[in-house]
Parts: sequence; C-alpha cells; structure tokens
Amino acid sequence: MSASGFRAKQLTVVGLGLMGGSLARALRESVDGAIIGVDSNAATREYALQHKIVDCATDSLKDGVTDSDVVILAAPVKAILTMVNNRIGSYLRSNTLLIDIGSTKQDICAALGQLPIGVHAVGGHPMTGKESSGIEASDATLYQGKPFVLCPTRRTTPAARLRALGMVETLGCTPIEMEARRHDRLVAAISHLPYLLSAALVTTVAQEGDSDDAVWQLAAGGFRDTSRLAAQDVTMMGDILSTNTQAVATLLALFRAKLANIEAMLIDKKEKELADMLNPARQARMEWVARLEGSKNGTTNTTN
Amino acid sequence: MSASGFRAKQLTVVGLGLMGGSLARALRESVDGAIIGVDSNAATREYALQHKIVDCATDSLKDGVTDSDVVILAAPVKAILTMVNNRIGSYLRSNTLLIDIGSTKQDICAALGQLPIGVHAVGGHPMTGKESSGIEASDATLYQGKPFVLCPTRRTTPAARLRALGMVETLGCTPIEMEARRHDRLVAAISHLPYLLSAALVTTVAQEGDSDDAVWQLAAGGFRDTSRLAAQDVTMMGDILSTNTQAVATLLALFRAKLANIEAMLIDKKEKELADMLNPARQARMEWVARLEGSKNGTTNTTN
Repeated sequence: MSASGFRAKQLTVVGLGLMGGSLARALRESVDGAIIGVDSNAATREYALQHKIVDCATDSLKDGVTDSDVVILAAPVKAILTMVNNRIGSYLRSNTLLIDIGSTKQDICAALGQLPIGVHAVGGHPMTGKESSGIEASDATLYQGKPFVLCPTRRTTPAARLRALGMVETLGCTPIEMEARRHDRLVAAISHLPYLLSAALVTTVAQEGDSDDAVWQLAAGGFRDTSRLAAQDVTMMGDILSTNTQAVATLLALFRAKLANIEAMLIDKKEKELADMLNPARQARMEWVARLEGSKNGTTNTTN
Repeated sequence: MSASGFRAKQLTVVGLGLMGGSLARALRESVDGAIIGVDSNAATREYALQHKIVDCATDSLKDGVTDSDVVILAAPVKAILTMVNNRIGSYLRSNTLLIDIGSTKQDICAALGQLPIGVHAVGGHPMTGKESSGIEASDATLYQGKPFVLCPTRRTTPAARLRALGMVETLGCTPIEMEARRHDRLVAAISHLPYLLSAALVTTVAQEGDSDDAVWQLAAGGFRDTSRLAAQDVTMMGDILSTNTQAVATLLALFRAKLANIEAMLIDKKEKELADMLNPARQARMEWVARLEGSKNGTTNTTN
C-alpha cells in the first residue's frame, strides 16, 4: 500500500464548519460512494446539501459514521474528546480509518488510543485557516500547500498511517509526522501564545480607549495585524488552551521574562543591548518568511 | 486663509524614503515651482530624479531648504532631532512652514518650539506605511484615507496650523489634532507595544527553534500576522522607543500583569474567568474593524 492514491468507499465528515466543509470539497474526487456530513445545525446541513458539499447529512453521529470506511472529526477539541470518549467506538466498523483534526493532540491522541482494537485512528492537525468561519467560507483549496501534522496513537497501524499520509497528500498538504506531545509544545509557541498576546493587546488598548477614545482612531496596520487573532472564537480557543495548559503557561512565563528584560533595557537606556535583542528577532522573522517563500536567501526578501 | 487649497511655491522633502518619496509624489500638483529632495544617499537621489519624484536633489540640507516656503522632514526621529537642534533654524527663510513626520512627537515638538521666531513649525505623524521600504516603494496613494496627527508647537501660528491642515487634506488624510504628549501615549499602545510583542514573540519561537527546528515548519498565518512587526527596521524603532520610554515602559508593565493574570487563570483552570477576559477583547477588535470599514454595526463584520 503506497501513500499516494488515497481512496475512500464512503467518507464521513463530522462537523461541517470551515475546516470540515473544505475537507469534504477537497476529497470529493477521492470518494467512490457518498460523502456524509454530520452536524447538529440544520441550516448548516441544508447549506452543505444544497451546495453538494455532502451527499447526505444527518445530526446523528451513529447514523453518519456507521457505514463509512473513512471518518474525519472536524469539530472543536472538546467536542472531539466527547465523541471519542463516549460513543464513537461502538459505532464504527472494523478497519475504519478515523482521523481527527483538532488543534491540540495529546488528550485527543490518548483518547483515540483507547478505542476498540480494529478502529484505525490517527491524530491530525492541518496548519491552515481563514479569517472567516463556517461552511459558507469553505473552499476546496484551503489545504493546498499547507503543513498537516499527523500524530500516531495506540490505534495507528502501519496501514492506517500510510492511508492517512495518502489523504494528506491528496489534500495537497505537506505531511509532518510527530508525537502529540511535541506537536502541542510547538503550537503553544506559534499559535496559542500569539493568540493570548493578541487578546491581551486588545485588552490593553481598550483600557487606553476607556480614558481616550482617540486610540482607536490612530490604530493602523501594525495594530491590525497584531490584533487579528484576538477575534478568534473564544469557545474554540478555550478548548485549545484548557487542553494545552502546561505548555502555554510555561511559554507565558518565558515571554513575560523577556518583556521584563526589554522594560529594564528601556528604562536603563541600554540601547545597544536592546538592539542586540531586536536585530536577531528581525533576522529570524525575515529568514522564516524567506523559507516560506521557498527562497534560500533570507536577505533578498522584500516582503517582511 | 482656508484649510483647503494647499499650495507651495517651492517644496523641500528631507529624507527620500518610502514616506518622503510618497509625500513628494502626492503633493506634486500642489507645488507651483520645484520640489527639492534632500538625501545623503546618492543612489536614492538618482532614483528620485530619474522617476521625476523630485525636480532637484542634493545632499546639502542648507542648499535644499534655503529657498523653499514649505519644508517637510521625513527622516527617522533622531535624525529629525539633530537637524532641528543643530542646523535647520539658520537655513530657513522667515515664514517657512516646517512640518516633520517623525513617529514620536514630544521631543521633536519641544525642539521645533525652540526654532527662531518666524519659522512656522508643526509636528506631524501620518498613520500609514508599507511592508517594503525605500523610495522604490513610494506611492502617491500611500496617505489616502489615513489618519494624520498634527501636534502644535510653540512655533505653530494660526496660519501655519491652517496651512498644515490644508496639506493633510490635500494628501487625502483625516487630520487629528492633539498635543504631542497625548499622541506619544496613544502610539505607545497601538504601535510601540505591538512592535515589542512581535519581536519578543519571534525571540521566543526562535528559542524553541533552537531545540526543535520543526517549530518553523508549523508556523502559519496566525504567527505570520503577529510576527510581522518584528521585521521593522531596528534603528528606526530604537529611535522611537528611546524617545517614548516612559509611556512604553508603563504599558509593558501593564501588559505583563495581564499575561500573569492569564497564566494564573490557565493554571487554576478558571475557564469562565478567562473567557470573560477573552470575549470583550474579541468584541473590541471586531468593533474596531467594523469602525474602520465605516460600518456602525460591529456584529455584522465577517472579516475578523
């Protein structure tokens, strides 16, 4: 069995939001039979049917997954945990490939590992998204060219791993395989910490705004970028933070120490030392953007 | 004399970077005679001449400003301070309108206030910019629709104020008049704090990257936005920070306290309290974006 040529006889996507809807659209050509959508929201199911994103839609997890050979859980982290811990194991056929795309992986992969033997489960996390959410924003190209982390569980057979890799490649993603614990530590740094910084920044500016409303008039592009993550769904982010508390708290403490250091350098007018901290940050950011753009040369990048 | 219908007999722009070059382009039709550019870099002067951004170019501040009735200082903060404190007062003709566009205003406006009586000086700060810098990136539309702060100095006559307002309106900007001290406190919140957060974030991620390079592979759109400001020019930002130390240090301390609070809520699993902090931040960010987009309804905005 090779990693390429992913096919499903029948595919179920549980959770028809931006991510799940986009997955259904992107995998359309790889499914021989029906694509089933499971969602508790009637309007969402209706939209998905009308736009032929799915062939059938139901609010019953059991009915939706029972005859499929590939099931993707595209729900918020705690909803995934509830499904995996409480119900889904008894609904699935033997040899079904179950992949979740929750944003934290340790708790979910541990839960997946407790499913009945015969369920083939792999943890997943595609590093993609959009400012807008919901099935209306779903897009067959959302995954193209993006990293897709795959985390093994106690129910990941070699064949399941290859099949999951095949699905990731079919989506046009770059697969990155790693342990769940490592994944969670890394996304704490590049995703959860930035979210909290963004939210705390908006809180700080709003506090300034309470005494001087003009702060909102002056806010421009720099603030716009830095504050964007603050608009993410709070319930979704709460799930993520509460399942990655230790890594996030550790990074927050590290980050606060860096800010305290900057504050001291400012007050003590240590301009050279401050520049010696800011210049490597600038360089690292430019090199990352250059890497993203496929260039080997971090110094020729002009879009930083 | 009305605020509209700004005209200059001869205009000098000191500093032909992105901001100065764009100003020269945008004011072209408002100048009866020549536009003079002053820049120490020969290649920049050559570019500005070849692209007809200026009519004459020189590296001599004295030669460049001596016959103009409007002079704009479009240099980094400390370069502006050096020019204003050391030389420019004796070069300018009486009744010349002098406007600077430095990013902090207290030190510069104080220095402008010490110029000889007869120089008409106004502090300015357009809230615009671009990711790319240099005269090659200059653009006649850079200022359109953006806020432009004007700060009075001891050398701001009523006529100078109206003429500066006229220039700002000619650029297509929204003028916002305020004292320099108030300006500096507000930009500390919406510009200088976000820059330091962005740089400290990249430093934190780079530290993770030292032990696990995969962190750079996983970094996606959220990190891209939050880290963008870290790529700003360190010398320029150093000037800004060192002339706004107190306001920035105060905000850093406030911000660190908020992070410590978040950290405690995470560790103590106070999910409700955390959501009660994150939800107003989300709301404030959405309302600001809605305001930016000219909508009165913060809840219908979908581009957050």
